[in-house]
Amino acid sequence: ARPGGGSFVSDVARPASRSVAARRDVAREPRGAIGGRASAPTARDPARDFRLGVPDVSALDWAVWRRLSARALRAFARQPAGYAAAQGQPALREGIAHHVSFARAVSCGSDDVLVTAGAQQAFDLVARTLVKPGRTVVAVEAPGYPPARAAFAAAGATVVPVRVDAEGLVVDELPPQARIVYVTPAHQFPLGCVLSARRRAALIDFACAHRAAIVEDDYDGEFRFDGRPHDALKTIDRSEAVFFVGTFSKSLFPGLRLGYVVPPPWALEALIERKRQADSHCNVPAQDTLAAFIEQGHLARHVRRMRRVYASRRSLLQAALQTPELARWLEPVAGTSGLHLAALARSRRDVDALVADARRASVGVYSLDEYRHGLRAPHGLLFGYGAIGDAAIEDGMQRLRRVLRQR
Amino acid sequence: ARPGGGSFVSDVARPASRSVAARRDVAREPRGAIGGRASAPTARDPARDFRLGVPDVSALDWAVWRRLSARALRAFARQPAGYAAAQGQPALREGIAHHVSFARAVSCGSDDVLVTAGAQQAFDLVARTLVKPGRTVVAVEAPGYPPARAAFAAAGATVVPVRVDAEGLVVDELPPQARIVYVTPAHQFPLGCVLSARRRAALIDFACAHRAAIVEDDYDGEFRFDGRPHDALKTIDRSEAVFFVGTFSKSLFPGLRLGYVVPPPWALEALIERKRQADSHCNVPAQDTLAAFIEQGHLARHVRRMRRVYASRRSLLQAALQTPELARWLEPVAGTSGLHLAALARSRRDVDALVADARRASVGVYSLDEYRHGLRAPHGLLFGYGAIGDAAIEDGMQRLRRVLRQR
Repeated sequence: ARPGGGSFVSDVARPASRSVAARRDVAREPRGAIGGRASAPTARDPARDFRLGVPDVSALDWAVWRRLSARALRAFARQPAGYAAAQGQPALREGIAHHVSFARAVSCGSDDVLVTAGAQQAFDLVARTLVKPGRTVVAVEAPGYPPARAAFAAAGATVVPVRVDAEGLVVDELPPQARIVYVTPAHQFPLGCVLSARRRAALIDFACAHRAAIVEDDYDGEFRFDGRPHDALKTIDRSEAVFFVGTFSKSLFPGLRLGYVVPPPWALEALIERKRQADSHCNVPAQDTLAAFIEQGHLARHVRRMRRVYASRRSLLQAALQTPELARWLEPVAGTSGLHLAALARSRRDVDALVADARRASVGVYSLDEYRHGLRAPHGLLFGYGAIGDAAIEDGMQRLRRVLRQR
Repeated sequence: ARPGGGSFVSDVARPASRSVAARRDVAREPRGAIGGRASAPTARDPARDFRLGVPDVSALDWAVWRRLSARALRAFARQPAGYAAAQGQPALREGIAHHVSFARAVSCGSDDVLVTAGAQQAFDLVARTLVKPGRTVVAVEAPGYPPARAAFAAAGATVVPVRVDAEGLVVDELPPQARIVYVTPAHQFPLGCVLSARRRAALIDFACAHRAAIVEDDYDGEFRFDGRPHDALKTIDRSEAVFFVGTFSKSLFPGLRLGYVVPPPWALEALIERKRQADSHCNVPAQDTLAAFIEQGHLARHVRRMRRVYASRRSLLQAALQTPELARWLEPVAGTSGLHLAALARSRRDVDALVADARRASVGVYSLDEYRHGLRAPHGLLFGYGAIGDAAIEDGMQRLRRVLRQR
């Protein structure tokens, strides 16, 4: 205890110290509960690091981005200073409405869109808008995305993990009292399966029957490689249940911190008010730059280009996983989209051994166990290919094969 | 009621509809509770609009900003994509630590700073970190800043307004159960008085005695015109009670959405975790641009330049208020800082008449009543001079005098 009242933390017995206890509770909250697809690399050599959740920006047309950014700043400087609309810049909302209509068949207009600081803020705002602390049950996928779960938990929800199988979220096992269902239908995070048409219909039925809201996280929905995307849940939503959440962290880059939510009409005003109260609005020059980037077709072009790049990386990875040394240990989850691939293992012990072997060979691969949410879930490895090129993929998988051969 | 289950809102009697009620509560939350210094102009002609809370950006060296922005983007593009530190870019935190040490005598290092999306996010994160819903009492100034109040209320606090007089917050009237005190010591918002040395000491004593936290909103603390600034509360804080909150919305521009909080050490980790959960981190190129702008001395130069500009505007305004036509109605609150000036009136009726008269003359002035927080508070007018030049000030005040003469 320091002199001069510095006993906030150590002295909890005094009657006036209720706030001290509060502080302690908060300060003791577990770190690292949030990590998931944004987790830092753990392998020493990032050149062979199959980390998750990061895109490749080397093919982005940065010269165009800089030019549009400079132009946005010039136009911005000519306007009087002031606060902007909490909902987002109209031109960006227009661009997002076009983008999701075209890329994801979600028909909406610019007035239906709320611009957020990445998908994470969308989850946070939705949670704070819908969750009644201590009274709202939120169902999440297990394995699933920890930061979304954390947003609902922080808002005071009772979070219930629900199993995922080859068809995605097992809708039949949703607790009837769930009032919010968080789901990644286009490319389940982290397993990578797609929510089947049957399950999609069942989930919409569940929302109708139980008057539940659905938070549809479409984090990498732009990156499908077989040209036959399922409709978004938002597209088949007949009950105003679906909050469609997207991000530019995968299609462009995470440092941009821009994403969006297309909520049901009844929730829009409340979400905008939450956004205003959370941080007024997003960075204006960044919004204006992105709006021009979309409007001039650069985003669509970049996504098309990266679709080919990621498809090729995924093929390389799948081919490597089919070699006998690896096929003995791992079975890839079927799928044709996204920026990462999951492969199941027979046991947790196998996974731990594989991760350790890979690390010894300077290859970073990740265990599914980090995403279990406490539920029994399959064991396996995750290979992100957003931030690793063809050569490094081949080199990394070859090193992995070599250490396995020596076992 | 639309077909297909679209009865979310209208059908609250059914047993399964608890979430519907929740939705309705939320959707019904009053709009416009947040506005305050960020409020939109109400006069028709913005050339004579004394709106609050917006700085003048016409004197900003935009060419330098664009150059640093382009350079930041070039460096950013060379790095692999990924998520950045939730606490903020190290170089920016370094720059902020220098800035507040130099401009506000708050001694801190870069590790003590959390970068936020403007001051509003700092209030929101602090509220969500410290407030136990339904159990924490937060004292705010009345009149005061509505968006800060809204952040605490949204986190579930019981917000108690406390009177302000010529010496600032009346510390003697703080409810003993207050565990958080939100205060604007450098330039009370909206009255413009400075928290006296006596009250500062008393407030620190209160925090020690009651183990309360103090949220020190230093929104325009850079702009003092008499060269004798009081120490920040943070500077004289001996009990690790003070969360020092600053913003670049006044010293640079609101669209940047960058601010910061320097919390007591015991709260730092919890705040960073909240930030990570709220939106991962702030826009990276914007942070890097600002870091370079500070590091190269441009921020300090801009603040020095604008201090002269705003001081001259304030003098013009004060001179106009001393003319007989206006002195009959209004008595300016003493003060030598900030981007706005308050002038008290004898009655609410006088204020309403003055606002209406001004509006008829195409002059935008604002009533103190918007900031009362339900408490009895003096009536008066607010004149922001951040976004209005010398000529428009003179023209506006002349118009105001003219209509008053005709009464």
